[in-house]
Amino acid sequence: MSQAIPDRVTAAVLIIGDEILSGRTQDTNLRDIARYLGVLGVDVAEARTVPDVLEEIVEALNALRARHDYVVTTGGIGPTHDDITADAVAAAFGVELIEHPEIIAMLEARFGDQLNAARRRMARVPVGADLVKNPVQGPPGFTIGNVFTLAGVPQIMRGMLEDVGPRLRGGRPTVSRTVRVEGAGEGQIAAPLEGVAKAHPDMSLGSYPFFTPEGYGSNLVVRARDPEALAGVVQELIAALAAAGIAQAREVE
Amino acid sequence: MSQAIPDRVTAAVLIIGDEILSGRTQDTNLRDIARYLGVLGVDVAEARTVPDVLEEIVEALNALRARHDYVVTTGGIGPTHDDITADAVAAAFGVELIEHPEIIAMLEARFGDQLNAARRRMARVPVGADLVKNPVQGPPGFTIGNVFTLAGVPQIMRGMLEDVGPRLRGGRPTVSRTVRVEGAGEGQIAAPLEGVAKAHPDMSLGSYPFFTPEGYGSNLVVRARDPEALAGVVQELIAALAAAGIAQAREVE
Repeated sequence: MSQAIPDRVTAAVLIIGDEILSGRTQDTNLRDIARYLGVLGVDVAEARTVPDVLEEIVEALNALRARHDYVVTTGGIGPTHDDITADAVAAAFGVELIEHPEIIAMLEARFGDQLNAARRRMARVPVGADLVKNPVQGPPGFTIGNVFTLAGVPQIMRGMLEDVGPRLRGGRPTVSRTVRVEGAGEGQIAAPLEGVAKAHPDMSLGSYPFFTPEGYGSNLVVRARDPEALAGVVQELIAALAAAGIAQAREVE
Repeated sequence: MSQAIPDRVTAAVLIIGDEILSGRTQDTNLRDIARYLGVLGVDVAEARTVPDVLEEIVEALNALRARHDYVVTTGGIGPTHDDITADAVAAAFGVELIEHPEIIAMLEARFGDQLNAARRRMARVPVGADLVKNPVQGPPGFTIGNVFTLAGVPQIMRGMLEDVGPRLRGGRPTVSRTVRVEGAGEGQIAAPLEGVAKAHPDMSLGSYPFFTPEGYGSNLVVRARDPEALAGVVQELIAALAAAGIAQAREVE
């Protein structure tokens, strides 16, 4: 029996920065944004990573903001010449950049007569943008249309997210439960798992194998919007695995 | 004086899997692929992460393979119902899927009469594909056109990469050097950094700030294809920083 699914609210993440594409820096912002938004009922449905090249940021941003309810960008809002995200967001929306008076006031309070041209770059936001608070350090992010532009440094990005959440129209949050299978590979698990997945098209069932010196197996993750239905499907999955000869399946945290 | 730059060879990475977009799993494959290809002179120039949805994989794959010399995909080649990467690659190239006789032979040797329908899924490759060796465990990946389809499990993906490298037409590798600045923020660094960057348009100069309990500063990374020219620019950058009153700049590993 299929269930009524509330309209899905989706977001895309746009990661901006040569350092991610060169492999120098390990991105963790996608994971953190996905978890934060997921709790609010907003599913990250797509992500892209682009270099510090204006045209490429603009193209990706325009593609993503047309396809999703929200877009979160990270990176490229500092004072150096390679920080061109504000320019790209303004270009994508076809508006000018201005120096935001609140940010200028913050920068003046902090830097006084050391407020040079580079630091003033951080005050530039697209016309019509609102600020996103930065509770960590440095200047704020901004939001225009359905786009939120945040810092790239993970601890600052996470701080800014706290001012993004309250502005989102959330869907119903997805909840997940995990069944851990030990001593059986995906080749054995696939048939019972697929049977349960096909019976519940409103849920997402995935299999994530692990291999350790101590043994192998797979974590089966069931995601759904209805916690009660989810609990039933977890039991159904464990029973289906048992019927296929896989007794070592148990729910884990 | 600008230098002759050899044709840039670029690759895109396509990460496939709901578990990355939900934030459940931290991707590390992009970084590993970028580093591996970078050494071979192939720059990862773009990355996308898509869910386990056939149409979305096909669309992203067709966009990326048209724009870049190579595409590397990770994830979705196991035996379970959510593993649909082979289907998507075949659809993108407009060819059928077949059971590859070499993979079937491997699976028969391993599983004997336990070779069920789910496990046979792992033998499916697009018509015209060549295999990519898997030195770790499990079935191989495959390659068709300019696309390499690898496993999602990081240790297996890395093993498969070793059979990708020899097939690539590499560019000239990019080398990088890092100048670490302590006790100065990006607002001070920006002007001298930009001056050096503008004088060397054939190089990439980026600034990556850090904030620790012990202090703050930024790592300035210079990337270029000519190691000798790069060494000169590192010295030029340190001198430009010193001229701007930033004495605490030194090259680090």
